[in-house]
Amino acid sequence: MSVSEPGEGSRAVELLELTAHERRQHLIRVATEIFPAVGADGLTLDRVATASGAPVSLVRTCFPTADALLSAGLAEALDELGERLLPFLNLPPSDAARRSVLEYVRWAEERRDAFRCVASAGSRHGIGDLVAAVRAQTVRLIVGELHHPQVDQAPAALRIAVTGWLSFASAAILARAELGAPDLETLADQLVVALAGAIRAAGDEEGAERVAASGPAAS
Amino acid sequence: MSVSEPGEGSRAVELLELTAHERRQHLIRVATEIFPAVGADGLTLDRVATASGAPVSLVRTCFPTADALLSAGLAEALDELGERLLPFLNLPPSDAARRSVLEYVRWAEERRDAFRCVASAGSRHGIGDLVAAVRAQTVRLIVGELHHPQVDQAPAALRIAVTGWLSFASAAILARAELGAPDLETLADQLVVALAGAIRAAGDEEGAERVAASGPAAS
Repeated sequence: MSVSEPGEGSRAVELLELTAHERRQHLIRVATEIFPAVGADGLTLDRVATASGAPVSLVRTCFPTADALLSAGLAEALDELGERLLPFLNLPPSDAARRSVLEYVRWAEERRDAFRCVASAGSRHGIGDLVAAVRAQTVRLIVGELHHPQVDQAPAALRIAVTGWLSFASAAILARAELGAPDLETLADQLVVALAGAIRAAGDEEGAERVAASGPAAS
Repeated sequence: MSVSEPGEGSRAVELLELTAHERRQHLIRVATEIFPAVGADGLTLDRVATASGAPVSLVRTCFPTADALLSAGLAEALDELGERLLPFLNLPPSDAARRSVLEYVRWAEERRDAFRCVASAGSRHGIGDLVAAVRAQTVRLIVGELHHPQVDQAPAALRIAVTGWLSFASAAILARAELGAPDLETLADQLVVALAGAIRAAGDEEGAERVAASGPAAS
């Protein structure tokens, strides 16, 4: 902590001056900041309180549990992703694929901590459910674009391909962050071509063609 | 518990009659049995003790912590996988791909609990490291088969493709188990073709051809 930073007391006062909504946003930001160091299992209200310079009792008035805080932060990040993808949903499938994948890759880069949390949220209760719901919704959306409006009636192989590809994309984004290459546009192109390949491997040649036919990712 | 089952006392005695190695194997088996119900985070020595009918003090002589027990069980399952894949490593790459993927899919089906643990092991300390090491080793192996003996010198896009595909395969296997279709041979074929597609998407046309050239999975 640098000497010019305010002490804990003044930061608690600052927190009290915020509206309830602003206070929650602030705590989500603090939790996001310490998340890389502590991990999902290490995120506790005590740690968030310490990092924010506020007493844990004040933190608890905003979020009753660390899971509630984590879920709220994740829901906020996923809402932002949804809003960023919305403009692409009415495009023809080929454009929609490439543009929305690029936007997803950019979101994952900008909200890296939230993304890591989504990608690793396996066991922690509440978050796992939230992530599973968003994944199921995304599978429904992609399978719908491939002319299967009822996901339950789509071929099992296609559902498996799209479900698998979502995990492929997560792992690829994390691997790219670690390797530092290629750039986000190139990665997005690679992911779209891999999606086409996965759909082809599921026996849906026409769907694969439609996805692969999308032009180079718009920047 | 059915009335014909022995009481806790007699099971503790039974455990004491085993060798140290057998006792550890027995506890790993018990932990594997309760794993689907309790999850990685819910697996504690107390729960394993209750399920095995032995006092926790006896369990603790075998494994000091639940993480140690979980890691030992996982290591055992992964060792078994390694042994099952060994015979395919000296085959030409095309055969190796299809046969080892099929064997992996079969292992995942037979050791479903261990596989779920591997697939979901994100946060829990010790297990996450073990799974990450096995994944890194598998990436090295596959990238090596694609004429890049030094994984550090392989193109980033290819490393990303193979890393992503491992997650694809995990998610696909879990999705297949949930959907109940297709059969394991068909899934293995789909995974191999998807791997070829992912390698092609990474710009390695020749590597993709070699993987895709493999014949139908041997049963």
